[in-house]
Amino acid sequence: MDMNTRDTLETQLNVLGDFEPVVPASYQGADILMLGNLSPAVQLSVIEQMKERPKLIVLDTMNFWMEIAMPDLEKVLKEVDVLLVNDSEARQLSGQYSLVRAAKEIMKMGPQYLVIKKGEHGALLFDGDHVFFAPALPIDEVFDPTGAGDTFAGGFVGYLDSTKDFSFEGMKSAIIIGSAIASFCVEKFGTARLRELTRKDIDERVQQFVELVNFDIALVK
Amino acid sequence: MDMNTRDTLETQLNVLGDFEPVVPASYQGADILMLGNLSPAVQLSVIEQMKERPKLIVLDTMNFWMEIAMPDLEKVLKEVDVLLVNDSEARQLSGQYSLVRAAKEIMKMGPQYLVIKKGEHGALLFDGDHVFFAPALPIDEVFDPTGAGDTFAGGFVGYLDSTKDFSFEGMKSAIIIGSAIASFCVEKFGTARLRELTRKDIDERVQQFVELVNFDIALVK
Repeated sequence: MDMNTRDTLETQLNVLGDFEPVVPASYQGADILMLGNLSPAVQLSVIEQMKERPKLIVLDTMNFWMEIAMPDLEKVLKEVDVLLVNDSEARQLSGQYSLVRAAKEIMKMGPQYLVIKKGEHGALLFDGDHVFFAPALPIDEVFDPTGAGDTFAGGFVGYLDSTKDFSFEGMKSAIIIGSAIASFCVEKFGTARLRELTRKDIDERVQQFVELVNFDIALVK
Repeated sequence: MDMNTRDTLETQLNVLGDFEPVVPASYQGADILMLGNLSPAVQLSVIEQMKERPKLIVLDTMNFWMEIAMPDLEKVLKEVDVLLVNDSEARQLSGQYSLVRAAKEIMKMGPQYLVIKKGEHGALLFDGDHVFFAPALPIDEVFDPTGAGDTFAGGFVGYLDSTKDFSFEGMKSAIIIGSAIASFCVEKFGTARLRELTRKDIDERVQQFVELVNFDIALVK
């Protein structure tokens, strides 16, 4: 992490030092809890406030917390079902360069499912010995990548909430949907492209993902 | 390219200066011509020696030839059906960073099909506005990557020769087969792993590729 990023984050951390979110009563009983990329202590506090454990807890985190709050991060990892990180974070968290080995180490820390995001190179989903690869859509130009990771998380969790299918197959579909929606995010600044999206836009984009990886092997006998 | 690589290649180039391969009579009438990564002048000479144009001409090249023999490379590109390059070579050849834009520029230079190899990040196949993405198999450890590109080319062309299906669908299958066979190459030094391969090994590896990218989207209505 460069020093500017660290300074910015440390400033945010100081501001957030007093941030003690209270889960509204109407949020109790939620099937899914999505913990955004905040300090592990805040993430733990939110889990503890849920009277009934959600059926699925999804965690986003980053290298910054690995560097300054690893003991808390280890605690929260034990409580979650799905972890979302990028490739460099997976390597840092596990101390392993190979993403397959990194995934094995990270799944030992708690999460059943691990999603490793590789930006323009797609994303990998791990579940025990099973692995699934979701490509990123090759696009002419990335106008602004800001928010693509959060958009992916939103699409991923939103889809899971609509299907309530938290199996490996369900996760695979959710990653494709998350990738499809994130691919719109980078086309314009901020949330501009997302706000104008129609259901048809999304369905067509998902169909592009299907065509991108669909093949039939006619094995020669 | 670093200077050591350049020195090595220039030494090879001097040695190869007198290399004037003669196509054996028994090779005339071949359906496919695979031009390995030699100087574009040698590649052109081989094409010219074929009395009947092969149904498919596949070309491998690299950044070195773009730097020292671009006029010859442009000539040979006009004569081929499929070009195999890696991502940095595609960018250098086209002057475009976006691989989608790079592909459009390169296809204007001659080849109908373009395969952009991205190493551990898989490969892209372009054909006009159609694109296909073949993942690389996530593996525990790359023991020795030497020869993976040539192994990919060999598996790709060998499969095409067995099917004689040179359509986009046929190319997609061939890329999966090439990727599967290349994934064995990196497991041991040199050709050691390839020499011990069985048909069953290959079929099982191809099945892993199928499972790696196979998904069904249950679209929410």
